[in-house]
Amino acid sequence: MKIEFAPIGIIRSPFIELEDMPIQPAAAAGVKGTVEVFEDFCAGLKDLDGFSHIILLYHFHHSHSFNLHVVPFMDLEPRGLFATRAPKRPNPIGLSVVQLDKIEDGVLHIQNVDILDGTPLLDIKPYVPEFDAQVEVRTGWLEKARKTVSSRKSDGRFK
Amino acid sequence: MKIEFAPIGIIRSPFIELEDMPIQPAAAAGVKGTVEVFEDFCAGLKDLDGFSHIILLYHFHHSHSFNLHVVPFMDLEPRGLFATRAPKRPNPIGLSVVQLDKIEDGVLHIQNVDILDGTPLLDIKPYVPEFDAQVEVRTGWLEKARKTVSSRKSDGRFK
Repeated sequence: MKIEFAPIGIIRSPFIELEDMPIQPAAAAGVKGTVEVFEDFCAGLKDLDGFSHIILLYHFHHSHSFNLHVVPFMDLEPRGLFATRAPKRPNPIGLSVVQLDKIEDGVLHIQNVDILDGTPLLDIKPYVPEFDAQVEVRTGWLEKARKTVSSRKSDGRFK
Repeated sequence: MKIEFAPIGIIRSPFIELEDMPIQPAAAAGVKGTVEVFEDFCAGLKDLDGFSHIILLYHFHHSHSFNLHVVPFMDLEPRGLFATRAPKRPNPIGLSVVQLDKIEDGVLHIQNVDILDGTPLLDIKPYVPEFDAQVEVRTGWLEKARKTVSSRKSDGRFK
């Protein structure tokens, strides 16, 4: 069974290469980018500017294969793929929570961008803490590493 | 440009019908379900059991059309589609943060399930507050309504 999607826009960022990219929005604090929503979909942006944060779902368009075990950026041991945020996945869908500064003529001006320039946008959802935030959590192998995420950058491993 | 995905598993829940479903995980507190991951992908579940919460991305498989303006469950006014979490979207990808209780033989036992039984699973990501949680946010039209989400149920409007 195949499921077909098509981009609704393009994400623009300062990151032309996978190497040296921040690995999560938390590591991309202040990095600015834009989302160019295709004209056919711009009417759906109404009311979005009331939200300070949005969830972007996008296609990891450079990911054409995957391994079920990967050594993540923040660890030295191989981990199960679904216990990581590695971009090479069976369905390479990326998810980033970014700050929305303003919307002008179908262009979203965003901050905390950890996304490659030219990335195809699949969906935009409003970020709502009651739906999306969990405070008391366990985070497994990431427990020690996650506080260092803001200083970690990508390298060539997922090229 | 088309992007093709294929399910990596199936989500099981008590919700056979769209009507009367909780509209978000926050409204489905304690509702139990399972995720049956297809055998080919089970090796990727290693280490996932260290995480108390996971992000499920799935296909809203009953959504075959969309309107760019919708009246959301928690409001009376038409809103821009991308400022809502309505299931009928150009790319009908659902996102839920659920609690992970245990993993047995490729089956994830989860709680806080607001997902229709039989839903095709696209991806599993570990939930990590440093990546995914935002505390100080504005939530536009949802500002007043969002605290009432736990008492709201679905109706037939997105059938």
